[in-house]
Amino acid sequence: MNRVYNFSAGPSVLPVSVLEKVKSEMMNYGQSGMSVMEMSHRSSVYQEIINKTEASLRDIMEIPENYKVLFLGGGASTQFAMIPMNLMKNNKIDIVNTGAWTKKAISEARRFVEVNIVASSEDENFTYIPELDNSKFSPDADYFHMATNNTIYGTRFTKIPDTKGVDIVADMSSNILSEVYDVSKFGLIFAGAQKNMGPAGVTIVIIRDDLIGHAGDGVPTMMNYKTHADKGSMFNTPPTFPIYVCGLVFEWIKSLGGVSGIQKINEEKAGILYNYLDESELFSGIVKKKDRSLMNVPFVTGDADIDAQFIKEAGKIGLINIKGHRSLGGMRASIYNAMPVDGVKTLVGFMKEFEAAR
Amino acid sequence: MNRVYNFSAGPSVLPVSVLEKVKSEMMNYGQSGMSVMEMSHRSSVYQEIINKTEASLRDIMEIPENYKVLFLGGGASTQFAMIPMNLMKNNKIDIVNTGAWTKKAISEARRFVEVNIVASSEDENFTYIPELDNSKFSPDADYFHMATNNTIYGTRFTKIPDTKGVDIVADMSSNILSEVYDVSKFGLIFAGAQKNMGPAGVTIVIIRDDLIGHAGDGVPTMMNYKTHADKGSMFNTPPTFPIYVCGLVFEWIKSLGGVSGIQKINEEKAGILYNYLDESELFSGIVKKKDRSLMNVPFVTGDADIDAQFIKEAGKIGLINIKGHRSLGGMRASIYNAMPVDGVKTLVGFMKEFEAAR
Repeated sequence: MNRVYNFSAGPSVLPVSVLEKVKSEMMNYGQSGMSVMEMSHRSSVYQEIINKTEASLRDIMEIPENYKVLFLGGGASTQFAMIPMNLMKNNKIDIVNTGAWTKKAISEARRFVEVNIVASSEDENFTYIPELDNSKFSPDADYFHMATNNTIYGTRFTKIPDTKGVDIVADMSSNILSEVYDVSKFGLIFAGAQKNMGPAGVTIVIIRDDLIGHAGDGVPTMMNYKTHADKGSMFNTPPTFPIYVCGLVFEWIKSLGGVSGIQKINEEKAGILYNYLDESELFSGIVKKKDRSLMNVPFVTGDADIDAQFIKEAGKIGLINIKGHRSLGGMRASIYNAMPVDGVKTLVGFMKEFEAAR
Repeated sequence: MNRVYNFSAGPSVLPVSVLEKVKSEMMNYGQSGMSVMEMSHRSSVYQEIINKTEASLRDIMEIPENYKVLFLGGGASTQFAMIPMNLMKNNKIDIVNTGAWTKKAISEARRFVEVNIVASSEDENFTYIPELDNSKFSPDADYFHMATNNTIYGTRFTKIPDTKGVDIVADMSSNILSEVYDVSKFGLIFAGAQKNMGPAGVTIVIIRDDLIGHAGDGVPTMMNYKTHADKGSMFNTPPTFPIYVCGLVFEWIKSLGGVSGIQKINEEKAGILYNYLDESELFSGIVKKKDRSLMNVPFVTGDADIDAQFIKEAGKIGLINIKGHRSLGGMRASIYNAMPVDGVKTLVGFMKEFEAAR
């Protein structure tokens, strides 16, 4: 079959068993006589699919009953506008700036509200998570925005800040379902599907009930959370096929012991790679150890030519998409949930060979 | 395999050859070693897919060079807001109201602009296309909005109105690629994919260059056509897999002689069904003959119990999703491009049997 190990930052690797299932159901899902792609979103067979997808996500994330789960189109980038448009009351928000994605959130929120940056790691090119000083928080902020994991720089928050009652909005696009989070600590969680959940084209929003229903008249119908919450994500035709694949991924996570089960596997995978980076004389990580991501691991040799040679040779043996983000150079291995332990072992094995041969 | 004939109004039937191709490429697209769902949208292999998809659409629709093709998320419903947000200058638009979808466009546009309804067929429950009186048009309208085909009521415009230089915005969600249109007659064409192009989750916008770049600062980045036009629909991660399937559908249309080729097949299919409706003593169409859709064919017996019995018995032999829209009752057969001629013949054969048995 010649599958590669795909270290892409997103869209990214999916579980082989999920792809096999999608393939087996392509011409005829269950007894329906049609592909999921061909199903009316109003049909009972599709309603069962989306119901089951939501139930599985609620199960593995232990989402409390007073939170809605929305399946939306438009990508996580659309959320950077939807969140302030729906949640603004005092027209002021707090945010911690940990890289490109929070920068986009900042510039988009500024169209609508005053943005207070409580901390930033831009001084060291976002290679660490800044300490948060509570005295810089706005007690009357509409919400506090953070990205739990930064895809580009490979940092993550290892604890959720105490915001003294201000609702936390978390961009979990690159690490949702990779480790256990207590949903009740957040007002709103959002994540594009294409890293840890499924194909690009659906964004999942988990929002506490009381945050829904405050959008003004100038907010487009499709940008209002209430539109989608009131209709179970069926106000219009949702991205039906991507939702179906997400449901299969959620079931796969369940089969591995849920999020806590997959977290152990993720810690094992990340440990293999970071341990080697710490002992290697050629390769090194770029992020402060305490802030290292379980999902995205940027590393460098310090020599752009050697980096390029490494990337090229790795590609030849099926270790794909390990070129670093253009803003950092070097390499990045994204080791999302669906990356097998063997993929990381193969990568580290090759890094050792490459280092030994020099 | 037990595939059914799926007359769903959308999402809807796809060509079997396209589904077979998707299935065959599920584990490993080309020599990539991965599924299309797993590909980075920034990879050269995916760039080729989206480039080819756009080129195929340009080819079969003969889209002039001064038009951009955008692949967007959020569904056609999002366009009801994006269009006025991007195109408004004089803050006034004209629209012809032919049913549920133009009504939604009207109420959404009213958030932003003054809306002048130049004609409506609401007086007869949208079962005809109203005559247009040019004297009711606003010479300073920002654009004229129409839906070329109405999915629910089964009507279609057989000619494009002369708007005296005002740009026409056309919702072609339910009949794009079903018959030949001269793109140069329109300022903007939009269509959700899930009827005649591919899976739900991607909306195609075809927009003349000079209409791009006029959105104000209050317009969210993701709602601004310029954002997507400047980046070839790659500002953020587009719905990669739905776009890939659309590309295969465009190739399939090419193989049938392009849009003019498939138009002939559509006229044949619609003719078979309408001819029988005209001669039947049990079943009748509900739309004025001159305004009949090639894509959506609502029909009734005049007796709700008989309708229900017909729908039930049709379902038993694999003629699926022919229940009419709740606002009309009766039956509706959506016979999109991918519905084979044999599907329509089988339906009409069963209608004849059902009628004869009474």
